Amino acid sequence: MKAVVFKGPHDVQVESVKDASLKSQTDAVVRVTRATICGSDLHAYHGRMPVVPNFTLGHEAVGVVEEVGSQVKNLRRGQRVVVSAVVACGECFYCRRGQVSQCATSGSAVFGYGPNNAGKLGELDGGQAEALCVPLADYTAYPLPDSITDDAAVFLADILPTGYFGALNGGIKPGDTVAVFGSGPVGLCAAMTAGLFGPAEVIAVDPIGYRQQLARKLGAVTTEPKAATEFILNRTNGRGADVTIEAVGHESALAGAFEAVRPGGTVSVIGVFTEPQVSFPIGLAFMRDLTFKIGLANIRAHIPELANLIERGRLDPRPLLTHNLALSQAAHGYQIFDARTDNAVKVGLTP
Amino acid sequence: MKAVVFKGPHDVQVESVKDASLKSQTDAVVRVTRATICGSDLHAYHGRMPVVPNFTLGHEAVGVVEEVGSQVKNLRRGQRVVVSAVVACGECFYCRRGQVSQCATSGSAVFGYGPNNAGKLGELDGGQAEALCVPLADYTAYPLPDSITDDAAVFLADILPTGYFGALNGGIKPGDTVAVFGSGPVGLCAAMTAGLFGPAEVIAVDPIGYRQQLARKLGAVTTEPKAATEFILNRTNGRGADVTIEAVGHESALAGAFEAVRPGGTVSVIGVFTEPQVSFPIGLAFMRDLTFKIGLANIRAHIPELANLIERGRLDPRPLLTHNLALSQAAHGYQIFDARTDNAVKVGLTP
Amino acid sequence: MKAVVFKGPHDVQVESVKDASLKSQTDAVVRVTRATICGSDLHAYHGRMPVVPNFTLGHEAVGVVEEVGSQVKNLRRGQRVVVSAVVACGECFYCRRGQVSQCATSGSAVFGYGPNNAGKLGELDGGQAEALCVPLADYTAYPLPDSITDDAAVFLADILPTGYFGALNGGIKPGDTVAVFGSGPVGLCAAMTAGLFGPAEVIAVDPIGYRQQLARKLGAVTTEPKAATEFILNRTNGRGADVTIEAVGHESALAGAFEAVRPGGTVSVIGVFTEPQVSFPIGLAFMRDLTFKIGLANIRAHIPELANLIERGRLDPRPLLTHNLALSQAAHGYQIFDARTDNAVKVGLTP
Amino acid sequence: MKAVVFKGPHDVQVESVKDASLKSQTDAVVRVTRATICGSDLHAYHGRMPVVPNFTLGHEAVGVVEEVGSQVKNLRRGQRVVVSAVVACGECFYCRRGQVSQCATSGSAVFGYGPNNAGKLGELDGGQAEALCVPLADYTAYPLPDSITDDAAVFLADILPTGYFGALNGGIKPGDTVAVFGSGPVGLCAAMTAGLFGPAEVIAVDPIGYRQQLARKLGAVTTEPKAATEFILNRTNGRGADVTIEAVGHESALAGAFEAVRPGGTVSVIGVFTEPQVSFPIGLAFMRDLTFKIGLANIRAHIPELANLIERGRLDPRPLLTHNLALSQAAHGYQIFDARTDNAVKVGLTP
Repeated sequence: MKAVVFKGPHDVQVESVKDASLKSQTDAVVRVTRATICGSDLHAYHGRMPVVPNFTLGHEAVGVVEEVGSQVKNLRRGQRVVVSAVVACGECFYCRRGQVSQCATSGSAVFGYGPNNAGKLGELDGGQAEALCVPLADYTAYPLPDSITDDAAVFLADILPTGYFGALNGGIKPGDTVAVFGSGPVGLCAAMTAGLFGPAEVIAVDPIGYRQQLARKLGAVTTEPKAATEFILNRTNGRGADVTIEAVGHESALAGAFEAVRPGGTVSVIGVFTEPQVSFPIGLAFMRDLTFKIGLANIRAHIPELANLIERGRLDPRPLLTHNLALSQAAHGYQIFDARTDNAVKVGLTP
Repeated sequence: MKAVVFKGPHDVQVESVKDASLKSQTDAVVRVTRATICGSDLHAYHGRMPVVPNFTLGHEAVGVVEEVGSQVKNLRRGQRVVVSAVVACGECFYCRRGQVSQCATSGSAVFGYGPNNAGKLGELDGGQAEALCVPLADYTAYPLPDSITDDAAVFLADILPTGYFGALNGGIKPGDTVAVFGSGPVGLCAAMTAGLFGPAEVIAVDPIGYRQQLARKLGAVTTEPKAATEFILNRTNGRGADVTIEAVGHESALAGAFEAVRPGGTVSVIGVFTEPQVSFPIGLAFMRDLTFKIGLANIRAHIPELANLIERGRLDPRPLLTHNLALSQAAHGYQIFDARTDNAVKVGLTP
Repeated sequence: MKAVVFKGPHDVQVESVKDASLKSQTDAVVRVTRATICGSDLHAYHGRMPVVPNFTLGHEAVGVVEEVGSQVKNLRRGQRVVVSAVVACGECFYCRRGQVSQCATSGSAVFGYGPNNAGKLGELDGGQAEALCVPLADYTAYPLPDSITDDAAVFLADILPTGYFGALNGGIKPGDTVAVFGSGPVGLCAAMTAGLFGPAEVIAVDPIGYRQQLARKLGAVTTEPKAATEFILNRTNGRGADVTIEAVGHESALAGAFEAVRPGGTVSVIGVFTEPQVSFPIGLAFMRDLTFKIGLANIRAHIPELANLIERGRLDPRPLLTHNLALSQAAHGYQIFDARTDNAVKVGLTP
Repeated sequence: MKAVVFKGPHDVQVESVKDASLKSQTDAVVRVTRATICGSDLHAYHGRMPVVPNFTLGHEAVGVVEEVGSQVKNLRRGQRVVVSAVVACGECFYCRRGQVSQCATSGSAVFGYGPNNAGKLGELDGGQAEALCVPLADYTAYPLPDSITDDAAVFLADILPTGYFGALNGGIKPGDTVAVFGSGPVGLCAAMTAGLFGPAEVIAVDPIGYRQQLARKLGAVTTEPKAATEFILNRTNGRGADVTIEAVGHESALAGAFEAVRPGGTVSVIGVFTEPQVSFPIGLAFMRDLTFKIGLANIRAHIPELANLIERGRLDPRPLLTHNLALSQAAHGYQIFDARTDNAVKVGLTP
């Protein structure tokens, strides 16, 4: 089958690889109908992650069940599913309490970083391919109603739950002001889902014009990073935002999130930092009584409610899907997404 | 000054009464610029409450501060305010924990039931008048920003916080289905504010066509009481609504709310029952693990966040204000509101 | 094998019955090492439930796994387990959100009411026997560490989680006053587990001296029903208890719980009412802003934390186990438990 | 009057100073009957804070109201009170939501750092004196019942609420394991109040034998810092503590708290860091889904429930008060507390 293979930094190629097949009786093989490129695929693409070339990329995929292992109870051949980026069993200590990204059975395995990524994210090939093998499929693959199209469903695989996780971690209350730093795909998902908690205003902070434009279309007011603190203080009687969400993964955005949050507020981080350590303003955090939340999103735990919201028309992530390319054009997709050219926000790949 | 005086069942008249004046140094006199008639005014109007005639009606009023007692710290003459229907000190055991409707200082006093209502709701004249005296004014009167007009602000005095209280008590989570029984003014406020908690769908249940129409305009789907249980089960995979809100104050609506809620769900009551006792389905409630919440809303506690939401355009109660009459036309206002003629939803009175 | 068989009202007999065996590949057979008699067994015993004679009683049992179906993943022969009174799959809509007593797969099946109880509680034989068949065994049977003896573990099958559920539903906060109506086994478990939420005081209300004595031994202060309201008001500055827990299942105790709760407080019901309807003080509940919670406890969901607490010595239910009889003496056990003679609180049966 | 005056690093002297007097009509003068020395007094003592000599130290005091301003409503001469270390109005945006340490009226003023501490903590003299002036006295001073002695009440001024705040921020659930780093007075208060949330086990980490001994007396199990991670993993099936509390204010203890917390857990910091920035393990925090809470405790907000618990005998901080000296011996008190000699934990000063 064809797959998007990581060959080395800035080099992805669509190649023929061995067909996806069951490795365990709790697996399912899913024929992919839509995949998307994620900001965290770029960490590999940029050569900033300890991966070994020649694996299939991608952790955002929707498709049709083609084959199920003998111990899979809930799926059947022909069923449409979205595949959670993080594999989870649904039954361990962590899954039982909803912290499915810490699944003890899967070891927090994430699709698409290959068998040699220093062991931290499992050993799985990804979903930017004609098919993929889904471990612990009964829970990891979520059946889709027909009313949710692939264009919308593919957001359920990762970034819509991730944005939602950031908003949920913020503890947003009705009437609050929320500032989201970064209007890339994840930031926009955070801005969109923040609206589920009844904020008076969502402020999106990003330097790029077309991303600001999309944020406004989704109901946010916008500002650029340099002006953000002043803008946010002005709109909150000088107090600061009740909740700030960092959706960039960079120290400057993190500093902005700390500057702009009000005393007693929450800084919620969903941006992926590649540094193991950052400098943390502990004096300020102490004097201001801050809460700081961070983590790999509990993706699978939140798919049901987000799917409900899409079905009823309350959430619609499709405006973020600015490009939809053939799988064979994956290299081009990575280039425009990486360079932020062509007004790219989210880039889809269709096998 | 002129005031709407309760003369007896179905008999209200606009009369000259003694001018509102300070009774305590923590009071303020507010010149009323807009009042509204509430469903619970009708309990007096119908003769179903133990009141003694010849008092001024009304607990929903917006106006301008005219005079303040010497111990009032936060208000100044000329300031626009909304007056909370329930008087609260902001400092007692109950107020400190946000349960301001149980204020120990005011004894849960509510405006507009007069000095002889069996002592249960205080002894206050109401706000359907040219002016009213507001006890514990520092907390009971809430200063308004100019950007909130009287048309919107008057909803903050009671029914918007009351609807919100019903939604809040429901514990609505993103993706939930909420069914609101009753699309009178309070029910519509509940339907509107339920949206602040991210439901996938709000279902409004009411038999009257023009009220259903308004509910749909506010984003709800609608059904009538007889068809409600089946309609709700159909839209929730046969489970029932996660949360049902009773906004009628009648045993039949309460029964509907119990029938339509899913196992493990919550029935939240904001309708005002005049019966002291009702029959309660304890067997069903036990087998289905239900939560039942009821109460006089903590109005003043929720005004700040609701005012924020109105200011930022996230909530707009004005479509409910179907009529705006001169104070002198109060008798007519009571008639159409009571009879639900003339497509009346909320009736305003302007002195 | 031997089992305690319901022959008719006030008539239980130990008889030879067909050996417990697997009925499905997700079942396990557990050899019982300790069972106990529950207050809700008495509903059958008194002839107040629509059951058909000749089934095995009991829903509280601890034992050793003897045989597992081919689809049971987590259990192995020889493992000690406690069996949750309510069967649950751990994977359905309800189980995923912790509302395991509403399990859609088991249909809220409870052991020990037999195949003909009007279908409301499943069709299962009970655990007062030498062995029982446990459906959905992977989740319904919970493996026990050796450090928890049968004497303590058997409380995990029902009444310790049920009491805890009542306390949890109360939303007790540190410094609160909690009043528990009823000092039978479930009420005592509620009083004991209420302590996990940091109350300043737990007041146990019961007319029977030896039960009061046991409540005091567990750290509660005690009063009798007639004096309860005054006693509770006196100890709470005249306000009432923050939380009242009804653990009797009788209208008089329910009335007491409503009288003694403070405004804004919570009434939590764990007593099992046999009436389908009761009279409910809706006027009082409205004026006082009350929360009312009721339900079949989510037993299995709470076993892990309660087992932790027993292991670390923070909870010890063993003082409640006043009697431990041979299985053959079950008829005598039912008599003393029913009559509250012989200072019986909890009666164990050992096969 | 006599007061403990900061003369310079490691130099405190009891001197005659100007009598405490009202500065505003919302103030009260309190005659001190007991003060205590706090770990954060040592920050000034060590010369690590930007203070200017010649002010009265101390933010932990109990006493009797001697004089009240004309606008003080709730206090009367002769009343026993505990004075909250952080001044709060009880009415501003922050106080209304319980975040009283961010009081906008007082500007988070803390007693006992003098008028020239870079403006960050107000300009107040402290309570290690014969009397002190208490601003915003209606809320800042809390009336005491006679049943709470000075020995216990003085803990309500700061460290008992601070320890409780750390426990509360941890979000401890029944059955959890909690590890508290540091068994100084604040750490011991955290360990003690953690028990209010029903943990299965509290693990106290400290290198000093007599402090470990006291922690065990209060119900904790103990270990020393070097062995902590392994000890904690061993007692939690290798997972780590659900909640870790940092009560030292040092990077090594913070590192310990991060190492020992389980995935999905919470690190709660109450230790006072003098560095403005620390190195933060953001990679680990992301992969493990951690919550990080920190802040100046909302002391006054928590005094009522903690006072209730002391009154009912559920909390007893008195074992921490190892020394009770005359005010005139303050210099000696600072020495032994600083040097941790003489088995000093908490040192009282009685005028």
